[in-house]
Amino acid sequence: MLQLHFGNKNYSSWSMRPWVLLKQAGIPFEEVLVRFDSFAAGSKFKTQLATVSPTGKVPVLVDGDLVVWDTLAIAEYLAEKFPEKHLWPQDAKARAIARSVCAEMHSSFTALRSHCTMNIEARLPDVGALAWRDKPELRADVQRIIEIWSGLLETHKGPMLFGEFSIADAYYAPVCSRIATYALPVPESIKAYIDRVMALPGVAAWVKDAQAEQDFVPFEEPYRLRR
Amino acid sequence: MLQLHFGNKNYSSWSMRPWVLLKQAGIPFEEVLVRFDSFAAGSKFKTQLATVSPTGKVPVLVDGDLVVWDTLAIAEYLAEKFPEKHLWPQDAKARAIARSVCAEMHSSFTALRSHCTMNIEARLPDVGALAWRDKPELRADVQRIIEIWSGLLETHKGPMLFGEFSIADAYYAPVCSRIATYALPVPESIKAYIDRVMALPGVAAWVKDAQAEQDFVPFEEPYRLRR
Ligand SMILES: N[C@@H](CCC(=O)N[C@@H](CS)C(=O)NCC(=O)O)C(=O)O
Ligand SMILES: N[C@@H](CCC(=O)N[C@@H](CS)C(=O)NCC(=O)O)C(=O)O
Repeated sequence: MLQLHFGNKNYSSWSMRPWVLLKQAGIPFEEVLVRFDSFAAGSKFKTQLATVSPTGKVPVLVDGDLVVWDTLAIAEYLAEKFPEKHLWPQDAKARAIARSVCAEMHSSFTALRSHCTMNIEARLPDVGALAWRDKPELRADVQRIIEIWSGLLETHKGPMLFGEFSIADAYYAPVCSRIATYALPVPESIKAYIDRVMALPGVAAWVKDAQAEQDFVPFEEPYRLRR
Repeated sequence: MLQLHFGNKNYSSWSMRPWVLLKQAGIPFEEVLVRFDSFAAGSKFKTQLATVSPTGKVPVLVDGDLVVWDTLAIAEYLAEKFPEKHLWPQDAKARAIARSVCAEMHSSFTALRSHCTMNIEARLPDVGALAWRDKPELRADVQRIIEIWSGLLETHKGPMLFGEFSIADAYYAPVCSRIATYALPVPESIKAYIDRVMALPGVAAWVKDAQAEQDFVPFEEPYRLRR
């Protein structure tokens, strides 16, 4: 059986992507949580991961003797292994655009990622409002994301970015959660897309597990001392 | 005909990847240089790109009315469009590893990328030695790259990372150039791989064009005032 190693569900945005993809597609897999104690060398996190991950990062997908690391490679591997699940859009051009927006997420939006780290159980509108006021790069990131989503929802008529659910929605699911946690200002049509993503069974299942964790990891929440 | 928009050949490491891939695979394409004057809003670079790139970055591949941005999406698009070129390794497991190492390049090695920016025509051993002495993150990046290359060269017996030339070699070609420019210390077997990559016709053609450019872009060379 496929095995996915991942970090805390409340915090680990990269882990969320393949987990949601597997769940939403109905692909069975074994779950292995690697808790975030710290990312320092010698931490429990790094020690537990050392046996499986060549980069010391989560997520990692294990399929027998094959180890696939990095969300993008995992997504491509699953798309190839389960062609009947249509994880990428079926149309070649739409697929090229879907890969472009996933690759853009993979290497960009650093302001959003650093100022609004994923924190599913929390509601932090004040932290969000301060960052929104003081960080023009954050506003630029969100503006670009709105542009991507609006264009795709218009072209493909929703409900998901490419019509049906695809890797692209799994890829942007943590962004939906961040916008909700930090109450970042977005237009109504974007709020409606976020609501649809959060209501996907695969996303809702991850969120439920995240809320049940009750694990406060201080380095993931530099803006407060406790929940 | 396919059209590739790219930055200065001497400096633009991301542009080099799909250009080398197309050239080495013998896929015809039209070249569109978007010169680096500056990356500020309103620069000639951004103005020229605005009509074609949704992110304001190079490279961009244009195929009729389709625009594919980001190197990884471009690589996947080409692999799908030209299956007979075997741009990814043919074996499914090797392909998953190849995608993992490309995705790792895509989002990691920030110390190498920022301290040893690509500069093909230059030989800067002193700049390299200083960075090597003072930046442990740079040493860690190079150590990880040596680990990746050594493991793959051993598994697949060379000459390229996965036996025959693949996207993975195109992806790491700019790293080969950086190690040469900054004379970073690497083992003999790694030097030999770098020599083989630099000797690939697709890489040699890019290097030749880069050397012919004679275009000094100060913001790309913070360590000196002139060539
Ligand atoms: N590019 C990687 C990013 C993975 C990543 O950064 N994961 C974080 C957790 S969300 C991690 O493991 N960090 C540990 C560290 O940075 O040491 C991917 O797409 O899988
Ligand atoms: N993740 C992108 C990176 C592209 C990139 O950063 N390109 C640089 C030139 S090498 C660029 O256009 N920079 C312009 C800017 O940052 O404004 C890819 O893989 O294509």
